[in-house]
Amino acid sequence: MSVLVVGSIALDTVKTPVEEHSDLLGGSASYAALAASFFSPVKLVGVVGSDFPESEFAFWKARKIDSEGVQRVSGKTFRWSGEYSWDLNTRRTQSIALNVFEHFKPELPDSYRKTDFVLLANIAPSLQTHVLDQMDRPRFIAADTMDLWIETARKDLDALLPRIDLLILNDSEAREITKETSLIKAGRQIRRMGPRHVAIKKGEHGALLFGEDEFFSCGAYPLEDIHDPTGAGDTFAGAIAGYLAGRVGTVHFTDLRKAMIYGSVLASFCVEAFSLERLRTLSMDEINQRYETFKLMSQFEVTG
Amino acid sequence: MSVLVVGSIALDTVKTPVEEHSDLLGGSASYAALAASFFSPVKLVGVVGSDFPESEFAFWKARKIDSEGVQRVSGKTFRWSGEYSWDLNTRRTQSIALNVFEHFKPELPDSYRKTDFVLLANIAPSLQTHVLDQMDRPRFIAADTMDLWIETARKDLDALLPRIDLLILNDSEAREITKETSLIKAGRQIRRMGPRHVAIKKGEHGALLFGEDEFFSCGAYPLEDIHDPTGAGDTFAGAIAGYLAGRVGTVHFTDLRKAMIYGSVLASFCVEAFSLERLRTLSMDEINQRYETFKLMSQFEVTG
Repeated sequence: MSVLVVGSIALDTVKTPVEEHSDLLGGSASYAALAASFFSPVKLVGVVGSDFPESEFAFWKARKIDSEGVQRVSGKTFRWSGEYSWDLNTRRTQSIALNVFEHFKPELPDSYRKTDFVLLANIAPSLQTHVLDQMDRPRFIAADTMDLWIETARKDLDALLPRIDLLILNDSEAREITKETSLIKAGRQIRRMGPRHVAIKKGEHGALLFGEDEFFSCGAYPLEDIHDPTGAGDTFAGAIAGYLAGRVGTVHFTDLRKAMIYGSVLASFCVEAFSLERLRTLSMDEINQRYETFKLMSQFEVTG
Repeated sequence: MSVLVVGSIALDTVKTPVEEHSDLLGGSASYAALAASFFSPVKLVGVVGSDFPESEFAFWKARKIDSEGVQRVSGKTFRWSGEYSWDLNTRRTQSIALNVFEHFKPELPDSYRKTDFVLLANIAPSLQTHVLDQMDRPRFIAADTMDLWIETARKDLDALLPRIDLLILNDSEAREITKETSLIKAGRQIRRMGPRHVAIKKGEHGALLFGEDEFFSCGAYPLEDIHDPTGAGDTFAGAIAGYLAGRVGTVHFTDLRKAMIYGSVLASFCVEAFSLERLRTLSMDEINQRYETFKLMSQFEVTG
């Protein structure tokens, strides 16, 4: 089955202590769609300007990412620029130019409305809701969010949460939205706000998954060298949604576990190079190999 | 087989935002020995003053913790007092009175010298070394350490490390001793300082284990309510050493994995009550039940 992915499409300028790259493909939907495409066909929703490289449309086509839902508007593409600290653990946004994104209102092509799986990648909750309102009863809805929306669009976010099957957010956001220090308490409390499942991303410490009376904890794939952390969270969310859409049958907690692992594996590849460069050349064999290595590294008991 | 445990024995006064308790049993060896005793007989080494409760000796005896190596010296027992922050994540030492611990020099009874497994719980590296020097080729040596020794006794610590099979330390200490931000780099670098294996404790985020070309990552058992974090690290180390001693045959990486899990499980019980109160009433059934729950919560794929 397909997965609809809506979010931002941007041209990013990213500076780390050792490298700087300008105008590379970025945005939550770009990362999420490419990560999802390893597991299922993708229907992409977003907006780009007239300066957006035609080659990316060709790349999406080659990857079975349907770009009919990507609006092309005259003007400049959304631009983000950021700089990472020496240890890559914190980043400072240097500039944001919303450009064509400022008046973006996602409109779904008819062919998108019956898509069974949806990933509302990180954009304003009002836009995420607007997408859901155009859909014909999707089977599974995942949503990502960020601190900005918790702080500036809390009412919209609260209204969205009960419609969500899986909410994905990071540890500091989980603490912020609940005012709880304990992530265990926070995860359980967020579930009571509406989402059926909550995934809390903890960066180098892995991720936690909360369901009704169910819980899953996984570490992060151990990496010594990280080149660019940008998009790791979007990649994580995209792989989860893609993996779930690529399966057959009802989504059980056990499927969500595997989805989280594929999310972690794809995110671990994402940060090995700037922008989407590593994901562009990644193969399913490499993904499955890392999945197996990761499994072995996390198993309590190893047999045979 | 037995495990020799050497470390501090103290009477602790601990204040959390909700409770305060005075003169309860504490110290690295007290926690470690009791945790180890669930898995194997323990030979305890330490020092107490004339004010130390006789009832603790009776308790040790009932738990097959041999206290022949515990020196009773006239004077007061080592006392520590600390206060935890509102979220229990940081603690401030309010007072330390070394008392009889100030001139402590661990001397092993003859019956201790051939013990196969050793846990050098958290005390000065020079004392840890002094214990090893009295032993007759133990099969496996685990050692815990802390920031204080990294800062004030680095030379002693560096000399000890090559003699160690498993070094246990927490994330901030691993970063401090290596000047590395990445815990993956730090763990591998510490191995190059001498210990065959390195376990890095990450509190609520679990623990990492580094061996030669081998790696294991586990989360923490999810707890909503923590009453007193004191001794969690000592309990973790004690359970690891006890579990390894309680098995038969050579210690393989796969045994260390299970040991880490038992360490996490025992630590999760430890923090449920003040001092050693929860560990005193804990049963092996409760431990095994939590081990199984924890395993299920961490499994990538669940069958059956």
